[in-house]
Amino acid sequence: MTSEPMEDLLRAPQGAIDLSARETNASPGFDGGKKDGKVALLGLGAGLADLQERLFAHGMSGGHKNLLLVLQGMDTSGKGGTLRKTVGLMDPQGVRITSFKAPTPEELEHDFLWRVHRALPGPGYVGVFDRSHYEDVLIARVRELAPAEEIERRYDAINAFEADLVESGTTIVKCMLHISADEQRERLLARLNKPNKYWKYNPADVDERQRWPAYREAYEIAIERTNTDVAPWYVIPADKKWYRNLAIGHLLHHALSELHLDWPSADFDVEEERRRLAEEDPIT
Amino acid sequence: MTSEPMEDLLRAPQGAIDLSARETNASPGFDGGKKDGKVALLGLGAGLADLQERLFAHGMSGGHKNLLLVLQGMDTSGKGGTLRKTVGLMDPQGVRITSFKAPTPEELEHDFLWRVHRALPGPGYVGVFDRSHYEDVLIARVRELAPAEEIERRYDAINAFEADLVESGTTIVKCMLHISADEQRERLLARLNKPNKYWKYNPADVDERQRWPAYREAYEIAIERTNTDVAPWYVIPADKKWYRNLAIGHLLHHALSELHLDWPSADFDVEEERRRLAEEDPIT
Repeated sequence: MTSEPMEDLLRAPQGAIDLSARETNASPGFDGGKKDGKVALLGLGAGLADLQERLFAHGMSGGHKNLLLVLQGMDTSGKGGTLRKTVGLMDPQGVRITSFKAPTPEELEHDFLWRVHRALPGPGYVGVFDRSHYEDVLIARVRELAPAEEIERRYDAINAFEADLVESGTTIVKCMLHISADEQRERLLARLNKPNKYWKYNPADVDERQRWPAYREAYEIAIERTNTDVAPWYVIPADKKWYRNLAIGHLLHHALSELHLDWPSADFDVEEERRRLAEEDPIT
Repeated sequence: MTSEPMEDLLRAPQGAIDLSARETNASPGFDGGKKDGKVALLGLGAGLADLQERLFAHGMSGGHKNLLLVLQGMDTSGKGGTLRKTVGLMDPQGVRITSFKAPTPEELEHDFLWRVHRALPGPGYVGVFDRSHYEDVLIARVRELAPAEEIERRYDAINAFEADLVESGTTIVKCMLHISADEQRERLLARLNKPNKYWKYNPADVDERQRWPAYREAYEIAIERTNTDVAPWYVIPADKKWYRNLAIGHLLHHALSELHLDWPSADFDVEEERRRLAEEDPIT
């Protein structure tokens, strides 16, 4: 009994996608429960660290490859938790996180991709976008922050931008953290039950929540229009936090494995360097 | 028998400092050995995470405080290890690391502090500089990359810059990772012994090593000139990796504690929000 690999099960299908038909509470590709899932995530840690160090070594040695993880999802879908539990498994030296908020006046003066360009990871780095240029076709569509033709133009602009990135050595992994409206309510209520979580609660989130169907539609359109072979979308059932963490850890591990990176070889004479260090005058 | 707190023992003295007289292999303020030190560092983890989350909550709620950790030291002194083992204890969501390399042509067109301004952490964040504006009075002095008067001007410029930062809410912790030349030789040789560490080895580092006394002098001058009360220097004995990690963890913990941050209170009516969530129409 072989099941499909997790990355295939999570990959968004080509063509139209119906998010209401995709389970938010499932754990595709994993047979265990919460405890097993947490153990499995920690089990990924060493391999992930090794693969990430190879990528970093590659970048520090003149290579051009890097990785970009895009995290999108409704409020409370767990972008922060993913950063802590999954991204936190990697060496922070090689990770660069950018959290995209509402654009600043300076950012609004430029094309929507301007600020994204500035946040791209350098060679060898794992860049993580906590929200991203997809906000410009999600909230921007739902709240009509830009004319319809401009929104329309952006899907192609995103595809062209991402294709360029991939061409220049970036592996792109796009994850939509998919929770149910009921799960969001529970998470919002939980914030209200703990005074040390009040800071995470914003009454405007409840107003935004009323637009849930419009957001779902905006996600469906965005995923359909930008789910390219070079920069695929994954839809992560995210009601179970442990599964969300594990699934994204798995996708990172898989994407890094696919780079097949060896350790850079020495571009110097190892014996000669040993001799230099052994024979040098004492330094005081 | 009470010993002085670790932060006081590590604080660079006012006035001239003689780095050759400061031990690189000591563990001031800590009575145990390697195993105890590792346990103590992990013991700091939960408290550090709590303090960091308070800072992040404060920043997300309109507060202006943040923290900037500056890491300086000779090659192999352990800046990368500190990022992994100590900075890695914190939630990556609230940490922003910048690694400063040789300035790019664009950076060289600006004042030396230009690129540093662009890398400052936002409100609520812990910013970490892996190398920093101090390179502009260290390697720049040793290798005469700028005229002597310009180097001279920079100490005051740094003090004014850092005083402004502190004034606007930043806590600055500056750490010099202090290793011996012998320890550096051992670490360089160790890199030559492992093919998966060749990428960290650069023959130019051995040339740079010949200038050890000039670098020591440059550090002594930089520390003396910029060891202000608002932005103090700490000299971390760094031959023992475990002690270096623990000491910097302790300094971070201490600095965050000193902010005395409470959880932000709700700026909304908690009961009313509970009601809104309970009474809303079902969302599908």
